[in-house]
Amino acid sequence: MPEEKTFHMSLEEFRKNGYAVIDWIADYYNNIESFPVLSQVKPGQVRASLPDEPPVKGEAFDAILKDINELILPGVTHWQSPNFFAFFPANASGPSILGELLSSALGVQGMLWMTSPACTELETQVLDWLVDILGLPEKFRSGGAGGGVIQDTASSATLCALLAARERATDYKTNSCGCDGRLIVYASTQAHSSIEKAVKIAGIGSENLRLIDVDDKFALRPDALVEQIKKDRQAGLAPCFVHATVGTTSSNAMDPLPEIGRICKEEGLWLHVDGAMSGTAAVCPEYRFIHNGLELADSYCFNPHKWMFTNFDCDCFYVADRAALIKTLSILPEYLRNKATESGAVIDYRDWHIPLGRRFRSLKLWFVIRYYGVEGLRFHIKRHVDLARNFAKWIEESENFGLVVPPPLNLVCFRHKGGDSINRQLVEKLNRSGKLYLTHTTLNGQYTIRFSVGQTHTEEHHVRQAWQRIQETAGELENA
Amino acid sequence: MPEEKTFHMSLEEFRKNGYAVIDWIADYYNNIESFPVLSQVKPGQVRASLPDEPPVKGEAFDAILKDINELILPGVTHWQSPNFFAFFPANASGPSILGELLSSALGVQGMLWMTSPACTELETQVLDWLVDILGLPEKFRSGGAGGGVIQDTASSATLCALLAARERATDYKTNSCGCDGRLIVYASTQAHSSIEKAVKIAGIGSENLRLIDVDDKFALRPDALVEQIKKDRQAGLAPCFVHATVGTTSSNAMDPLPEIGRICKEEGLWLHVDGAMSGTAAVCPEYRFIHNGLELADSYCFNPHKWMFTNFDCDCFYVADRAALIKTLSILPEYLRNKATESGAVIDYRDWHIPLGRRFRSLKLWFVIRYYGVEGLRFHIKRHVDLARNFAKWIEESENFGLVVPPPLNLVCFRHKGGDSINRQLVEKLNRSGKLYLTHTTLNGQYTIRFSVGQTHTEEHHVRQAWQRIQETAGELENA
Repeated sequence: MPEEKTFHMSLEEFRKNGYAVIDWIADYYNNIESFPVLSQVKPGQVRASLPDEPPVKGEAFDAILKDINELILPGVTHWQSPNFFAFFPANASGPSILGELLSSALGVQGMLWMTSPACTELETQVLDWLVDILGLPEKFRSGGAGGGVIQDTASSATLCALLAARERATDYKTNSCGCDGRLIVYASTQAHSSIEKAVKIAGIGSENLRLIDVDDKFALRPDALVEQIKKDRQAGLAPCFVHATVGTTSSNAMDPLPEIGRICKEEGLWLHVDGAMSGTAAVCPEYRFIHNGLELADSYCFNPHKWMFTNFDCDCFYVADRAALIKTLSILPEYLRNKATESGAVIDYRDWHIPLGRRFRSLKLWFVIRYYGVEGLRFHIKRHVDLARNFAKWIEESENFGLVVPPPLNLVCFRHKGGDSINRQLVEKLNRSGKLYLTHTTLNGQYTIRFSVGQTHTEEHHVRQAWQRIQETAGELENA
Repeated sequence: MPEEKTFHMSLEEFRKNGYAVIDWIADYYNNIESFPVLSQVKPGQVRASLPDEPPVKGEAFDAILKDINELILPGVTHWQSPNFFAFFPANASGPSILGELLSSALGVQGMLWMTSPACTELETQVLDWLVDILGLPEKFRSGGAGGGVIQDTASSATLCALLAARERATDYKTNSCGCDGRLIVYASTQAHSSIEKAVKIAGIGSENLRLIDVDDKFALRPDALVEQIKKDRQAGLAPCFVHATVGTTSSNAMDPLPEIGRICKEEGLWLHVDGAMSGTAAVCPEYRFIHNGLELADSYCFNPHKWMFTNFDCDCFYVADRAALIKTLSILPEYLRNKATESGAVIDYRDWHIPLGRRFRSLKLWFVIRYYGVEGLRFHIKRHVDLARNFAKWIEESENFGLVVPPPLNLVCFRHKGGDSINRQLVEKLNRSGKLYLTHTTLNGQYTIRFSVGQTHTEEHHVRQAWQRIQETAGELENA
């Protein structure tokens, strides 16, 4: 940004405006609890406040920043509020925001090693570090046949795993859907919608996705899986891929990896394990049980952008056999040819995912791991789980509420005992209050409230206050 | 970021560290020409400088930032250097970097309208603005049956277009690859590798991708397309999708959209137009000719992250019939159900692309458009094209060099007349010098040098200096 008058932001202005944005952010976090957590705008309201026509003349940066407060903030749902208990968290942190800022400014493309070696090599190193930090199976390290890569989301990781499995099943000959042999994919009835999306995208077809029954803790039943595989083989179909979840979105259910893994080995199926939110729990040795059996998986992913203080997007995807993935996704046109690639001595991550271009995403993850240290990560993850367990205890002790299932980690699924209608009204009223935000699911056919603890700055008093408000609001509804 | 001692970055520290990062960035841009444009590290060098083990204790932010200079910068290829003439640009700018910073800090998920209405509505508005700014066909506006969405890259946009076309061709019944009827996909021999990747991912199989011959300007030959479609129909196959390019990666060739569009209408094929880099040229009315015939397309994409001063990732993807796209990608599990979605009054962009989660990417695009104004964007795009045309003129006037094809916009393809070997050596020697960075392709079977003008801060003297160095280095090689 050299000094010139022609429309660019000069370096002097960049410093001034940059400080202003940093201050804006600090002020925002300072005041974040004063905003309604769930945005209260009506459909079309934000758009109606924007000009119909794009500006012909450039505007001053101050004016643009001012509009963030006036036009944008009312339409923001505050995912970084400590009173955000909805969905799963997407927790950011100071070091992560600043790491992302550097990455934007460097503006490098990491599609090939050569197009920015540091972008590739830092990513490899940090993903190997995470094998240590989470105690993941050694086969996911880059030193052997496996390795890790940053994807945008678990949806994309699941798709890539499925594509590699599809190609392996058709012997890398056709790059086609394999529907001649009708490939079959398995997941539990509780699996994330992304597996259905992946099956559709890969051309396997949703009619070839089998949703396997779960047990009373909503975990996949291995006996039902075995039975379905047998049926499919008898029908002349080709079982191919199992998607198991460590912490389902509905209820945080943990599929039994050791049994599922054994079945996959016996049957020659690709096992992908999705630990999108819950995987981070394994930073604490006491929660590593969630990954028992993971050594039997072909691929695994978890999202530091959910619960590891790293702003979206950042999904870590590991494969045991990187050759399978690369064979599936690699294409080398002339304009990307280069000596480093041809030497075979480097990783070109473009062959590990759908897009060609890629940001320097490992930078923010590196910043988070270094700033917090493993010690700091453990401190906060343990704290979140403890907060959720306390909350679950209050539910258990209450007269009007009950747990739907015991919480394995940081997600509590509960209901008011008064039936679906009061639960639905309760969620709506609480969210409309703006004081907290929580969402629902259906378990055993019943409307169930989800209380998800994992926002970076959620402290004991936020959880206590939430429980207070839930009880009060329920009281109002009971007496209405 | 409330004030506490337990590992988090306090707000006070965030302000201090944030200013330090802003200063680092300003200094980096101030000194950017002092770094070798293409990183000179050897494979493994960056990794070897990093600790094997993750840190147990957290570290001070200063120490981390210092390592950017010492460990990371040597491994960075400086895409934001004004001496970057390689590939296509990925140009960033001050307003864009600060817009992205705000987006990281807000840390919202835009998967559903409800999860942050402003994230959806600003995106819709800005993508409608771009229909005005580029003079795109009205059918891509959100007011009618069409609409636009931000994707990460053109690779993903192409894949989504192909998926929608595949589903339409199989009547939305199977979500499967359609290989019963053997769907056939067409692109020119010069099309980007992403179409082959998309065909593989969608399970259509690369054997069903037809690469159509090009004319002497490397543009798809409509007569060859018609002939191939006829052949495929005669063989009982199902022609389905044509991928046309406005500005190919190799040589910036412009496929003839009016003729291709007519063929697609007659044959009932989906036409997707990829204007990833060159689309931005249409901000200037005098270059809008590149989009002649676009009104016949079913979908279109271009990347503000290439040539519109908006840092990666930001691809704008438009469809004429959004229902086709949504039918293909929509899945609605219970935990995402909400009143706004059910009312049908809002857009849920998660149904418009592969991932579920999504960042607030329209913020940086909004910042760029407002800060520069349409006037500022035009000024810089015209300047880049003029610089490339000057460069092409120098090539034409030189004794030892010649153009391989006349440059339609800002990419110049040329060769030294001394044959492949001297051209290859020339590129390698120039890139090793660190003074500039350019890449190559193959055209007419010959090694061809690409000179791509589009970095935000490239000025006349950079282009002039580059030409000087190219001539000098060629002279050294001629005399060696």
